[in-house]
Amino acid sequence: MSDIFPHDVAEAQARIAGRVHRTPLLSSETLNRALGHRIVFKAENLQKIGAFKLRGAMNTLLRLREEGRLPEHVCAFSSGNHAQAVAYAARELGVRATIFIPKQASRIKIAATRACGAEVVVTETRQIAEASVAALIDAGAAFIHPYDNPYVIAGQGTACLEALQDGVEADAVFAPCGGGGLMSGTWLATRLARPEAKVFATEPLIANDAAQTLRSGEIVKLSDTPMTVADGVRTLSVSPRTLHYLKQLDGLYEVSEEDILYWTQWLTHLLKSVIEPTSAMNMAGVVRWLRTQEAPRTVLVILSGGNIAPETQTQIWKTDYLQGFPKL
Amino acid sequence: MSDIFPHDVAEAQARIAGRVHRTPLLSSETLNRALGHRIVFKAENLQKIGAFKLRGAMNTLLRLREEGRLPEHVCAFSSGNHAQAVAYAARELGVRATIFIPKQASRIKIAATRACGAEVVVTETRQIAEASVAALIDAGAAFIHPYDNPYVIAGQGTACLEALQDGVEADAVFAPCGGGGLMSGTWLATRLARPEAKVFATEPLIANDAAQTLRSGEIVKLSDTPMTVADGVRTLSVSPRTLHYLKQLDGLYEVSEEDILYWTQWLTHLLKSVIEPTSAMNMAGVVRWLRTQEAPRTVLVILSGGNIAPETQTQIWKTDYLQGFPKL
Repeated sequence: MSDIFPHDVAEAQARIAGRVHRTPLLSSETLNRALGHRIVFKAENLQKIGAFKLRGAMNTLLRLREEGRLPEHVCAFSSGNHAQAVAYAARELGVRATIFIPKQASRIKIAATRACGAEVVVTETRQIAEASVAALIDAGAAFIHPYDNPYVIAGQGTACLEALQDGVEADAVFAPCGGGGLMSGTWLATRLARPEAKVFATEPLIANDAAQTLRSGEIVKLSDTPMTVADGVRTLSVSPRTLHYLKQLDGLYEVSEEDILYWTQWLTHLLKSVIEPTSAMNMAGVVRWLRTQEAPRTVLVILSGGNIAPETQTQIWKTDYLQGFPKL
Repeated sequence: MSDIFPHDVAEAQARIAGRVHRTPLLSSETLNRALGHRIVFKAENLQKIGAFKLRGAMNTLLRLREEGRLPEHVCAFSSGNHAQAVAYAARELGVRATIFIPKQASRIKIAATRACGAEVVVTETRQIAEASVAALIDAGAAFIHPYDNPYVIAGQGTACLEALQDGVEADAVFAPCGGGGLMSGTWLATRLARPEAKVFATEPLIANDAAQTLRSGEIVKLSDTPMTVADGVRTLSVSPRTLHYLKQLDGLYEVSEEDILYWTQWLTHLLKSVIEPTSAMNMAGVVRWLRTQEAPRTVLVILSGGNIAPETQTQIWKTDYLQGFPKL
């Protein structure tokens, strides 16, 4: 299955321009000196709603409007940033939104989604949240899948495209892999704007359905929500659509929880920016890749978001990892 | 005592230009909507070394060089950002630096000061750190006081001056008060660039030596280092030089530890930027001032820094304050 092409990312960019922030690039001299390489961070944690997810949701609704099919009512399920993204995009375009959120989600994300004007239905489980959208679809609401949707994927790719347009001469691009939407979009954007760059995914070792899927060739679905601290990539499986792109990556690094926490603390300290564990996770893969490189490299890291619940902050700072300085 | 004037801040700005970052202004639509006012944050947490302190240290050394008196050796005492500031500025100008740091200081700050090439001497107490510089001064080293120095004060004022030049039409300016260096510089900068704006200080209630001093008219010195979470303002007293400017402020708000933690969590969440409790403290004063205002106001808040030790992060996130949304 291949229904999205690199130029779709450029189209998405033109479509959503002015409705999302062109987020800045961040870097740390201290980090670059320690590693002997150059790491450039695309700061989607500074995007509206605090995450890249707005790009995909906005692109999807605007595309539907172009086609004269803007719905009166949209629905989605999400325990995280996609909820706010759909709520925000819907409000912008004057569309009613209903979002199903499992009760395990953090209260701050539920509150933020409500603050965007969406109707929020809190469900017992993630499975019930997913099943609940069916009834609304039957009643005529448009469903925006968090990743298995070509316009969502093309929209997510615009973060990487902007960074490459802004002059990052990347030898490699890293992004986190949950359902594979950001990863697919990032791969497509790189093909368009810097085809010589390698593209890598990172995934928590305890939520490694994508790694298992790539090893077996068949989509592996986790039976339970994995409780990784990288809560942006707790999805149970990728989809055939995203798998098509994931197969073309140059590699996927599986990252331990300890390494995710280590890099969350270090990036917070070095960049003075609030960075989700899901985003910080990339650095563990970056460091492993750089160890294989002889010449100094430039790496683009997509920082997916910066929404961290207070209970996750407690978990992040329980152990002090700011002792040994990051080195290769 | 009055040996610094508004134009000294403009001179300092010209002197340090290109050697410190012109830091960005941050704001949150969500916060502004909730308060019904406009709050603009000067992000000195994104300054080199993670704090405004570099401005004062750099201005002092550059001024000495202009006068042909650049020392071969500088010394300072500090448990915080001033240590790194002097170390960094000294390295930039090829000067040897010795910094005395009490052992209570966080290891990350000690490590960062060493990483700037300074010799760090860890002492048993703050009093010993302060006393130790005397021997070095006798041996010919130049001492850079953290706040009781006209060039330090003028340098610190450049943060506010930049923000006002960048078009913030402030009705009021808020900054935290420790020894009073930043506060004095902020008052001078406001006189220069926006004399109609009011200037307010904030201080932890449990470290309220400046408030006591202003009430009594005599400098009150705390007997022990106050253990406020706002570790940037644990100084024991202001100086006659800074008191001269503090007396001309429009007010000083004393802030509870709980309010400091509340605003640290909320600013982290709203701005996605790492903000020291010392800086977040300002918002408690801002909200109290805004309650007295009838028309919508613009407030400039100087975010002094973003260096937070892991143990302080644990303290910040122990209780969840992200429940009730900030309202007036």
